[in-house]
Amino acid sequence: MKISMIHIFVTIILVAAHMAIAESDMLQDFCVADLSNGLKVNGYTCKDPAKVTADDFYYVGLASAAATGNNTMGSVVTAANVAKVPGLNTLGVSISRIDYAPGGLNPPHLHPRASEAIFVLEGRLFVGFLTSSGQLISKHLNKGDVFVFPKALLHFQQNPNKAPASVLAAFDSQNPGAQAVGPSLFGANPPIPDDLLAKAFGIGPMEIQKVKGKFPAKK
Amino acid sequence: MKISMIHIFVTIILVAAHMAIAESDMLQDFCVADLSNGLKVNGYTCKDPAKVTADDFYYVGLASAAATGNNTMGSVVTAANVAKVPGLNTLGVSISRIDYAPGGLNPPHLHPRASEAIFVLEGRLFVGFLTSSGQLISKHLNKGDVFVFPKALLHFQQNPNKAPASVLAAFDSQNPGAQAVGPSLFGANPPIPDDLLAKAFGIGPMEIQKVKGKFPAKK
Amino acid sequence: MKISMIHIFVTIILVAAHMAIAESDMLQDFCVADLSNGLKVNGYTCKDPAKVTADDFYYVGLASAAATGNNTMGSVVTAANVAKVPGLNTLGVSISRIDYAPGGLNPPHLHPRASEAIFVLEGRLFVGFLTSSGQLISKHLNKGDVFVFPKALLHFQQNPNKAPASVLAAFDSQNPGAQAVGPSLFGANPPIPDDLLAKAFGIGPMEIQKVKGKFPAKK
Amino acid sequence: MKISMIHIFVTIILVAAHMAIAESDMLQDFCVADLSNGLKVNGYTCKDPAKVTADDFYYVGLASAAATGNNTMGSVVTAANVAKVPGLNTLGVSISRIDYAPGGLNPPHLHPRASEAIFVLEGRLFVGFLTSSGQLISKHLNKGDVFVFPKALLHFQQNPNKAPASVLAAFDSQNPGAQAVGPSLFGANPPIPDDLLAKAFGIGPMEIQKVKGKFPAKK
Amino acid sequence: MKISMIHIFVTIILVAAHMAIAESDMLQDFCVADLSNGLKVNGYTCKDPAKVTADDFYYVGLASAAATGNNTMGSVVTAANVAKVPGLNTLGVSISRIDYAPGGLNPPHLHPRASEAIFVLEGRLFVGFLTSSGQLISKHLNKGDVFVFPKALLHFQQNPNKAPASVLAAFDSQNPGAQAVGPSLFGANPPIPDDLLAKAFGIGPMEIQKVKGKFPAKK
Amino acid sequence: MKISMIHIFVTIILVAAHMAIAESDMLQDFCVADLSNGLKVNGYTCKDPAKVTADDFYYVGLASAAATGNNTMGSVVTAANVAKVPGLNTLGVSISRIDYAPGGLNPPHLHPRASEAIFVLEGRLFVGFLTSSGQLISKHLNKGDVFVFPKALLHFQQNPNKAPASVLAAFDSQNPGAQAVGPSLFGANPPIPDDLLAKAFGIGPMEIQKVKGKFPAKK
Repeated sequence: MKISMIHIFVTIILVAAHMAIAESDMLQDFCVADLSNGLKVNGYTCKDPAKVTADDFYYVGLASAAATGNNTMGSVVTAANVAKVPGLNTLGVSISRIDYAPGGLNPPHLHPRASEAIFVLEGRLFVGFLTSSGQLISKHLNKGDVFVFPKALLHFQQNPNKAPASVLAAFDSQNPGAQAVGPSLFGANPPIPDDLLAKAFGIGPMEIQKVKGKFPAKK
Repeated sequence: MKISMIHIFVTIILVAAHMAIAESDMLQDFCVADLSNGLKVNGYTCKDPAKVTADDFYYVGLASAAATGNNTMGSVVTAANVAKVPGLNTLGVSISRIDYAPGGLNPPHLHPRASEAIFVLEGRLFVGFLTSSGQLISKHLNKGDVFVFPKALLHFQQNPNKAPASVLAAFDSQNPGAQAVGPSLFGANPPIPDDLLAKAFGIGPMEIQKVKGKFPAKK
Repeated sequence: MKISMIHIFVTIILVAAHMAIAESDMLQDFCVADLSNGLKVNGYTCKDPAKVTADDFYYVGLASAAATGNNTMGSVVTAANVAKVPGLNTLGVSISRIDYAPGGLNPPHLHPRASEAIFVLEGRLFVGFLTSSGQLISKHLNKGDVFVFPKALLHFQQNPNKAPASVLAAFDSQNPGAQAVGPSLFGANPPIPDDLLAKAFGIGPMEIQKVKGKFPAKK
Repeated sequence: MKISMIHIFVTIILVAAHMAIAESDMLQDFCVADLSNGLKVNGYTCKDPAKVTADDFYYVGLASAAATGNNTMGSVVTAANVAKVPGLNTLGVSISRIDYAPGGLNPPHLHPRASEAIFVLEGRLFVGFLTSSGQLISKHLNKGDVFVFPKALLHFQQNPNKAPASVLAAFDSQNPGAQAVGPSLFGANPPIPDDLLAKAFGIGPMEIQKVKGKFPAKK
Repeated sequence: MKISMIHIFVTIILVAAHMAIAESDMLQDFCVADLSNGLKVNGYTCKDPAKVTADDFYYVGLASAAATGNNTMGSVVTAANVAKVPGLNTLGVSISRIDYAPGGLNPPHLHPRASEAIFVLEGRLFVGFLTSSGQLISKHLNKGDVFVFPKALLHFQQNPNKAPASVLAAFDSQNPGAQAVGPSLFGANPPIPDDLLAKAFGIGPMEIQKVKGKFPAKK
Repeated sequence: MKISMIHIFVTIILVAAHMAIAESDMLQDFCVADLSNGLKVNGYTCKDPAKVTADDFYYVGLASAAATGNNTMGSVVTAANVAKVPGLNTLGVSISRIDYAPGGLNPPHLHPRASEAIFVLEGRLFVGFLTSSGQLISKHLNKGDVFVFPKALLHFQQNPNKAPASVLAAFDSQNPGAQAVGPSLFGANPPIPDDLLAKAFGIGPMEIQKVKGKFPAKK
């Protein structure tokens, strides 16, 4: 019988595991995300205000550089978004730290729900974004420089130096999201048909297969 | 004991059955409406992302013209809104198909939560909207024409021809809503008092009763 | 075993007890706050539309002046916000009545989520707000006058007369909130350290203690 | 040459005559409407902050009841919106005063851009709004009562007494707008064709002509 | 003196040449875009309301299929956005027609400012979008089917048949924008460096050069 | 005649001197602020897209610590907002750098238009914010820590150490604004009357005069 009880609790937790809320105008001082509530809405449901503590607004995970060693692209994004800092729920802001190995690349990607402003913590970077009309807006940055990427446009950061680099990035969304072109198109699950990608990039299916080999499909 | 277990599960489902969400800024890639959840919020709660399929973003119900035969006004609106396409939840867009019998009329109405852009699929139409200052902006449309009705202003479409007509309508809301003047004022439940309507339209209570007879009160 | 069952139900109810909704764009005609639902979201979850009545949109509590007698500041704010008028949920508007004793003061405060427009119901007032650049915009008001305070800026109303005064205030939020400088800084719970406040106001810790004595910490 | 000078000034004024601004999030403390600037944007352009005074946030026009005598409906709306109080520009809030003669009616209308909360200053009222599904939500109000009308839904206020009445109305828009059904449909300029209205209300063109006679077309 | 006059006019035109407006909440019934005003704001400045006509809300350009013959991808998008239909300014909605040659492809792209709902006017399509977590959500569509692509996520439509196809697309933005991956990354102006793209896609600079050859840089 | 010409130019400049734009939804890829355009709207008018360069999205002013020496509070805020980085216009995000001398204090203040997330670049801090209900939420931070302050609530940061400290702050507004309690209330121009402040803080006018002496009125 105890096993059945556990089943019940697990079911409750699973059922409870699917809710959230809108980034829109706040309707109270704060609505700290109840990350353990399975009920999903647009964003997250709120934790009982009486149980909110300073730790809900605090995060320590950006303090040190991530290991960029075993990473194909030589870059690692560490997000302090609502999934990590529940107090960010409904606040409309979040930050990330990005670390780059020498020669590392944060490859072309976009954030569907946010503009981004970066501050170079360390090293140098070559950065750029693409406009809808096909213009590349790019810049070489030094330590302490600030650069801005408009909402949902393709952009990248490259470390052209032999020393590591890192930036702090500010977003106007509690959960900006990210869609990298390479992994998205060539590592989709299920895969996008070869002939479709071949036509899209003007190359042969064999070459598409080769690129797909670089991006193992996610599961 | 098994019965008790069922009770528990039923209770969980019932409790879980009452939520929903804001059209505002999206806070994740999508929040497919969990139409079976009774819990109501501004919009709908989200379906478990692991259970989302392409069918949540798909709808077949606009494919053919609705029967306009047994319809007083000679027009039928078929909506592909969030109640029909759960994937529209939080996306801020929806579409409808409107079919008109020869001489059919989509009578003066307004959408409290959306502007509307129509494309004439078939036939001809006389369309118009009213500004706050009492101006009528109207136009005769042919197949393939586009026309726009600003948010929450009274507007209409009339088929002046002997052939059927149909349009596809785009809205900037997952659930634009609609309030037709005739049925709303003369078929309200409970009814609006005759003397109030008589004064509002400058006619006698007898004439109000006559018009009310055309719009049987909803239940 | 029955006790365990009760535990389960209690857990379900507690889990269910924490949800609500966004002021953003409305996604249905209305979403009357279900104030009894413990589930919290940004705002409130919606009451079953079939159970909504006119009383959900109605409030009688602003009809008469509040007693300003046993009040240090000589002013009382009576809010008709979403917590009192559940129909206001998602509507983006609310009103308050403020009553002032002779010489009464609604001391410097701000509403984090709303601009405010007041109408003087009775008496005279000296009112003002402060801009980000330190300018005081102030005015002497008579009965029937209207004045506006921009969103989230510090402002006050003072009754300089020997007769009572009262205003009706309109807000563009269902729950504007309020943060009064004196009670917030000097009556916080737990208290803000004396040395911090002493430095902030350029006075000694002894004087800070004296002011703190006027604002007993909330619990 | 003087004529050329006039041409230049006229040109400036015409060019200047087409701009305004969004109610959306404010991007500075305030943006007092420059009502004299002909350039129109969504809302209004801003007055030079250095020339802003307390009078920009002040209005005296709601102090006394409007004359309801020479008014068919027996009701007069006096708005304190952005066109009267330039400081309201971008603030997202405004108020109105409505005065009712004995038996007066503010006939069925809607505000395309705002919800409304009213406070009864004087007298008694019978008020109501219609839902999209045709339900009438109505209430009899006394002095001091509050009632709420959701955004863009048809609603009305009627003074059923032999004494005058008046309310103060709060809106979540600097310019809520208003569209009254009677004048809009039957007094449009140019007029809506008789046959269209006849079909919409299920009565004859003669009767439509009669109603149109009550609402002379605006110019 | 005439030269001075010209200077003045040129100055007026230059000053006038930089304004536009927010899609956010509308602040008047409509704000028809003054496409001839050089002043740019977020969106467009408004045309003088006295000069607004029904044609400002009308467009004929979607009536017939575009020629897909001399098009590498075999697809053509014809937009009825604010640049074509000035009445759409501030309304938050627009539509497009997309025509596909047999075997045609609307290659992977995203709309930075809108979700999209399509209705198949003619033919069959294979469509899909990619989630942030790398999942492909795809579907085979027939004439009359509806499908939805969430905001700012990569998506495509392919005509797998030997007959032409066409769709009508609804967007929740007056100017959704579009960024196609192939032309953006491989046809940027100035070009994205070969080594950066080579690393991003895991192929050699020679192969990048080959793909770039398919997308001549825009000017 | 020359005088008339000057009049014309002056008129043009004055007319031009009053416009700006909404942070709301973007209506194009970007709208780089035309900081030199005197016309003010909600935000700023847009620079000619053809003249936009990478430098519009770039800022170097946060690279080094500001001098905190000749500063009463021992803290300096350096903003990279839209006034410094014109590309931020309409993007809804900005960042600041704050430097603290040993013992320095960023005294109680609020941002009327933004939530804030900070990252400690160097040193240690004691930080906190106040809720509407008078609770103090505070935390001691170390280098690399993240903390969040909800929108428009009073908050502070104090450097309790003998070493300097600095943070990078992210805001969800292109122009968050700031209102510090001390300078706002005690250094307003024109001044807030002594008796009003005396009543607000429960102390005597003499003590108010003393505090006012610490905050010379702005001009």
